Parts: sequence; C-alpha cells; structure tokens
Amino acid sequence: MRNLLEFDDTICAISTAQGEGAIALIRLSGANSVKIVSQFIKLGKKSFEEIENNWQQFSRFNYQGETIDEVMVTKFGNPKSYTGEDMVEIACHGSIYIQHRILQILVGAGARVAKPGEFTQRAFMNGKMDLSQAEAVADLISSRNRMAHKVAMRQMKGEFSSKLEQLRTRLMDFTALIELELDFSEEDVEFADRTQLFNLLGEVDEEVLKLSKSFELGNAIKNGIPVAIVGEPNVGKSTLLNRLLNEDRAIVSDIAGTTRDVIEDTMVIDGYEFRFIDTAGIRESTDEIESKGIELALRKVSKARVVLYVFDARSDQNAVQKALQRIQSKVIEDTPIIPVANKVDLLEHNQKHYEQYFSDEHVISIAAKENRGVEELVKILVQEGTRGLEDEDQILVTNIRHVEALQHIHQGIERIVEGLQNGLPGDLLSFEIRQVLEYIADITGQTITPDDVLGHIFQNFCIGK
Amino acid sequence: MRNLLEFDDTICAISTAQGEGAIALIRLSGANSVKIVSQFIKLGKKSFEEIENNWQQFSRFNYQGETIDEVMVTKFGNPKSYTGEDMVEIACHGSIYIQHRILQILVGAGARVAKPGEFTQRAFMNGKMDLSQAEAVADLISSRNRMAHKVAMRQMKGEFSSKLEQLRTRLMDFTALIELELDFSEEDVEFADRTQLFNLLGEVDEEVLKLSKSFELGNAIKNGIPVAIVGEPNVGKSTLLNRLLNEDRAIVSDIAGTTRDVIEDTMVIDGYEFRFIDTAGIRESTDEIESKGIELALRKVSKARVVLYVFDARSDQNAVQKALQRIQSKVIEDTPIIPVANKVDLLEHNQKHYEQYFSDEHVISIAAKENRGVEELVKILVQEGTRGLEDEDQILVTNIRHVEALQHIHQGIERIVEGLQNGLPGDLLSFEIRQVLEYIADITGQTITPDDVLGHIFQNFCIGK
Repeated sequence: MRNLLEFDDTICAISTAQGEGAIALIRLSGANSVKIVSQFIKLGKKSFEEIENNWQQFSRFNYQGETIDEVMVTKFGNPKSYTGEDMVEIACHGSIYIQHRILQILVGAGARVAKPGEFTQRAFMNGKMDLSQAEAVADLISSRNRMAHKVAMRQMKGEFSSKLEQLRTRLMDFTALIELELDFSEEDVEFADRTQLFNLLGEVDEEVLKLSKSFELGNAIKNGIPVAIVGEPNVGKSTLLNRLLNEDRAIVSDIAGTTRDVIEDTMVIDGYEFRFIDTAGIRESTDEIESKGIELALRKVSKARVVLYVFDARSDQNAVQKALQRIQSKVIEDTPIIPVANKVDLLEHNQKHYEQYFSDEHVISIAAKENRGVEELVKILVQEGTRGLEDEDQILVTNIRHVEALQHIHQGIERIVEGLQNGLPGDLLSFEIRQVLEYIADITGQTITPDDVLGHIFQNFCIGK
Repeated sequence: MRNLLEFDDTICAISTAQGEGAIALIRLSGANSVKIVSQFIKLGKKSFEEIENNWQQFSRFNYQGETIDEVMVTKFGNPKSYTGEDMVEIACHGSIYIQHRILQILVGAGARVAKPGEFTQRAFMNGKMDLSQAEAVADLISSRNRMAHKVAMRQMKGEFSSKLEQLRTRLMDFTALIELELDFSEEDVEFADRTQLFNLLGEVDEEVLKLSKSFELGNAIKNGIPVAIVGEPNVGKSTLLNRLLNEDRAIVSDIAGTTRDVIEDTMVIDGYEFRFIDTAGIRESTDEIESKGIELALRKVSKARVVLYVFDARSDQNAVQKALQRIQSKVIEDTPIIPVANKVDLLEHNQKHYEQYFSDEHVISIAAKENRGVEELVKILVQEGTRGLEDEDQILVTNIRHVEALQHIHQGIERIVEGLQNGLPGDLLSFEIRQVLEYIADITGQTITPDDVLGHIFQNFCIGK
C-alpha cells in the first residue's frame, strides 16, 4: 500500500466548473467529512451520520439559523469512495454566492480548501488507482476531442499500466533467479538462462521503443495535429485560415454553449483536433507587409504533421516549384505537403495550368474568399493528418514523464545487454535489472514517488478533482 | 393540480456551469429517463431499473462498445424528485468533450435538450412549487450577494406566497357570503357584514401597498445599490472609481476562482452589492475632455440611492456649494449625498478650509491616487446605502411581474371600495372581488397561467434548472 502519509485533515472544494450554473457540487474528503457537514444539515428523525452511504438526501443547509440553501447531500464511506476516505458530496444551487458561502462555512468548521488534484492524489495514495491512471484522470478532463478522450480513457482503465506490469513481472522473475544464484555463488550454478534473459530484454526493449515512439502520435492527439500553412505573401493564407476555422465553428456550435469553449486556431473534424502552428504570425502580418517571405514561415514546418503549401493559381511555374523544394528540404521525412492553388476564381478561362507542375502530388484548387474547394481541402487534410492514428490496439503514450521513464528503461536495458555480453557478475546484473524495474514502477507509482514529482503531477489538475 | 399539459417527452441538460471542471452533472426528467439511460449503463447483477431510487451508483457509461466515461448515476422516482417526474442524474468527468458527447448520446436515444428553466417549469406544472417559488429559484441562482440571496431564499421557502394566501383566504370567505346572499336575493338578507368587508379591504390594501413599495428596496438588493459619482471634470472621479472597484476585487478574490465572476463596476461589501451607475461614461471620457461638465452627470443622480459628490479639495467655495445645490435639486428626496474632497495631498499646509462649506453633511477627505481616506469613504457609503435594508421581518418584492399584479390588486380594491360606498349590488360586488382574488392567484400561479407568461418567466433561467 502506498499510504505512507497519514491524511488527518479533511479537504473540500467546488468540483464543478467555475461560474454560475443550475447546480454546483462541493466535495469533502477525510475522516471528519461527515462530522463537519452534519452540523449544517437539518434532517428529520435520522441524523446525517445514520443516513446510508451513497444515498442522496434532500436537506436544508443551515448556518447560524439562516438557510443557506436547499441541497442534496450524499455520504460515501471509506474505502468505497473516490479517494478511499470518507467523503461527502453537497449538490447546491449553482449561484456563485452560495457556492463560495458553503465553502467558507466548511472551512470555518475545520475543512481545508483542497489543492488542485488533491482528491485524486489521495485516491492514488490510498491505492485506489496507480499513478498513470491518476494522470489519465487529468487528461480525461482536459480531453477536447474524440481521440484524446479515447487515449485517456484507455490509460485510466489501466491498459498502459497492465502492459508495463506484464513486462515488469517477467523481468522480476528473472531477477529472482539471478539473485538465487548469488546464494549458491560458490557452487557456480546458473538458474537464470542467459540466452532467455537476452531474448526477454530484446522483447522488452522493442515494446519500450514502440511505446516511446507512440508519444509523437499521442501528443498530436492530445494537443491537436499540428498543421502549418506556408506560402508567399499575399496568396491568401489568412483568408484560408479563417475559412478553415469558421467552418469548424459552425460544426461545433451545434450544441448550445459549445462555442465559447472553442480554442483559438484549432478545429475538430471527425473527432480529431487540428492545431494550426504559429497562426498568430499569419494573422498579425497582413500578407502585404510580410517582408521576409516564405523563409521565415519555413522554420515552423519541421514541427508540422501536415503542411499546406498555398500559392496563387496565377503564379509563375518556377517560383512555385522552387518554393515547394525549399519546403520539402525542411520537413521531417514523410510529412505530407498538400499544394493548394488559391484564387482560382481569378484565372482566365479557368486554365489550371499549374496542375502540370505536380506529378505525384494532388493539388487542391480553391478560392478561399468564395469558400470554393475548401471542403475538399479539409477532406484531404483529415486523410493525411490522421494516417496511422486509428490503430485500435496500439497503446499511445501522451505524457512526457512517461516518455522520460521509458527512455531510462531503454538505457538500462542497453546497460544490461552490454553487461551480459561482457560477463558481468550476477550481483551487478541484478542491480542493473532492479534499476530498470524501478523505472517501470516509476510510471505506475509502485515505488515511493518523491513529493516534488507528485506535486508536479497533481498541480496540473483542476480544482476539486 | 396544475398539471394540465401532458409531458410525454423526456428532457436532458448539463446542469452544472459551462466549461471544464472536475465533475459535471447531466440531468434527465420524464417518463423515459430511466429507460434511456439504462441502455448505456453497465452494472453487475442488477439492472439500472432495479437500482434503488436516490442511490448513487458507480458505473461505466458505454456507447457502441466504447467506454465514454466512468460515472455516478442516480435515479429519482416520481413524484419524489425535483420535477415530480422520473429523473436520472449522471455525474461524469467535467471534460467539455465528455459532457457534450453524453448529451448527444442521450438525445440520440430519444431525450430532448431542455429549454432554460424547463426542469423548474415542470416542477411548477406538477405542483412541486408555486410560481413565485419557481421564480425565486432563478433569483437564488443569480444571487451574487448576501442580501439578494436572503430575499430569494425567503421567497423560495414560500413566505411571500403564504402571506398572499392569508389575504386571499380571508377575501374568499367574504365572497362566499356575498354569493350566498344572491341565492336569497328575494329575501333581502345580508350575510356579509359590509363594515367588516370594508375594514378587511383596508387591511389588504395596506399590505399590498407595503409590498409594492418594498420593490424599490428589493430591486436595490437584487441588482445592486445604485451609486452615482458626480463632479466637475478632472477632480479624479475615475481614479476614485478604480480605487473602489479594486478594493473590492482584493476582497472578493480571497477564494480562488472568484475574480473572473466579478461583475464590472459593482462591488460587494458586507454582503451588499453596490452598482456604480453609468461608470462607462466616467471611464471613457478622460476628465480633461469631458465637455459638458456636471450637468450631464446630473441626469443619473435621480436613479441613485447614494450620490458621491467629488470635488477638488483646492476648489473655490462658491463653485462647490453651487454644484451641491444643483445636485440636491435633482435627487429624490432623502437621497444621501456624500461630499468627497479629493486630492487633499495637494493642499498646502493640509488646510482643509472646505470643511467649513458643509454644515450638516460630513465631508470625507481623500487622496484617491494615494489610496488615502478611501476606506473611510467605503464605510460611510455602506452605512448610507444600506439604511433600512436590514429589517428582518419585511418581505421584499423583487419581481416586476409581482409588482404589476400588486398594482392590479390595489386598483381592484379601490373599485370595490367605491362600489361599497355606492351600494353596488351583490353580484357586481362579487365579480369585482373575484377579479382581485385572481390577481392574487396570478402571483402564485394558482390560476391557469397563460403560456406566454410562463414562457417569459422561465426563459430567464439558466440551462439545466
């Protein structure tokens, strides 16, 4: 059990989104939760202590003779609660005044306002979930699109943890055998088959590298698939950007109240989020005064998963091809570049002579101002940007802390392999393997996680979770 | 019972504040609530239908094989629910994506997104509360300060309704007697003592006028006590305003997350909200370019409950007294005017010669830029602005619809009194009294309330309540 700290205080927080709503939830966790709340709860025959756990009870919340609100209260008994401690949930009217008033009263009665993520931290400390699952809770809450949600949900369910656990168990078994050899060191026996260990390490390393590599993909899902829009000044990049983003707005605002949560310069299509890189630059500089041309924009294409290269449909062939070559030299291998011919409405006789410039690539003809062709462009963008994201079985790593741990594991394995090849003695071998085991345990928090690491993990949570 | 409409559809809404939070609540109300939700709820042995009412049950919310979230679900059986119908509450993770996804799934399964206030409207229709109580729910949710909260809570508890009910019952008894006379009209008997009726009408009218009059006070509590800041250009009005508002910010932001909900140009002190009238004007026009001087500002003082008259401490005596007289001629009788001498830091030898201008009034000396004296000003402002607001027993009317109904009652009573004096026949008298009874019933919604009136009342609610 990880419960090394004794939580003798009771925390409380508003757990619903900030602001005014129909209902707000205030939660308490800790040994005194019920005792604190019961002072303010006015029930009929039964006392609050006697009410059954998990039972939503209507009550007035009274303070010094004044009714603060009519609320629904629920007790949750340890260990069958989110945190594993005694908990109380108060559902009150969502007036900002009432929310804060109740919180103040609870604090006055001895509860402490919870730090961000403190409920989940307690859940972790009390063994209700492992560390990677706890981290997934924060990812789940901040998930803005279907894929990010899916990845977080899988991690919360523990798929990543159980994958690591499998690897860890197999390595652990080996360590046990090697350490057994140490007890019989004078007899020069070998319980742990070195070839088998070698093979196992290869397997583990392969898995670890696969997980590490998935981070790039996982990150794209979590933060949006990075898209760069590049092109010479005055070809209509900002018009196109606005078209793309507006298109998205219209889709998102189907449900009332969604619009205000739309994040600037991202759009969600088919559950995937696309993030336009450095769009501030596109917007701020009107195309006319953009002085350094395409060169400046090229710096960002290396971060993109898809590049939209926009040019004027009337442009000179040489210029377009030259620009395209420059872009190709800057992007990471295999990054798709979509050539976009804008302003086709200004072509004389609709002569798309530029189509012949491109042999392999499929060029998209648009008139951004008239919103012509943008739909097809979006279709191609989704197709190119989401390639490889739909593999259902792949576990995706989305957390930089996990990637670092995975890199440590990989380096550790390399050291063990080297040691095996050089005939490293059993005790040193065992030490190196134990190191790797610990790196694995770091991810799931099975080892004792230092306070500063925990602090860092949970500070990014929202209040009340 | 008011349930004249059959609600055969099931409504759903996100009931917590918009945006991302640790937890969000989604509610359904209607006959199919349980049936709709049970499709997505995965429980062990029991089905969702079999789970006890009011019991918070942990479950996964699954859709087409995918886990959308881990949730807590609660059933509430009619009539023991907020709306009086079958209800289901889903507490999910507060990710915006998850909230909207679940809502979409519920809508896909046959629920309808609720209109603002529709849950409370159903509660009213099903006789769970009267109309004035339903209106109080909206007031409670939007209450931003201690007094507004208190007034709404009293109305929600039904104090206003029961006051009206008392008056109505007594009048009703009289009508019954008068109508009894009609049955015996040929015998010329008088069951209803006209003098008693006369006295009763006087009593009712007194009460009605008192309630009507309380609206001004009630409104000040609900929307903030209106304060006007007036004075010549360049005396430091905007600096003072910013000081006052910043002072407030500092107080309010004690609890994390309050700041963003602070309403521009209002401040809450001691639970009272003060609203500065037309501060946009003060802010926009730098004092220097304010051309029409004090005359323009004077238009707003008639709406104020307190006027702050700001002048430069170095000003000429005549100008100050003249301005003060002009203000006094514009304000409603008894409105306190607080003279504020600003820039006292610029006085030579700290000679507050201006103090002699004022005989009765207490002049406050401040240096707004240096934040000197502002605290004392706030104290006086609270004292003057809240005079008479603390009468615990007074019922305060805060709703314009109620005021209108009260005026109708008053006019009706005047007609009856006139009729009594002119010996109006019993049947016409009875008709007039029945009119008054209906006006009273309008407030609590005991009569059939027309759809457009209901629509108007509930459209001001927030979504999900």
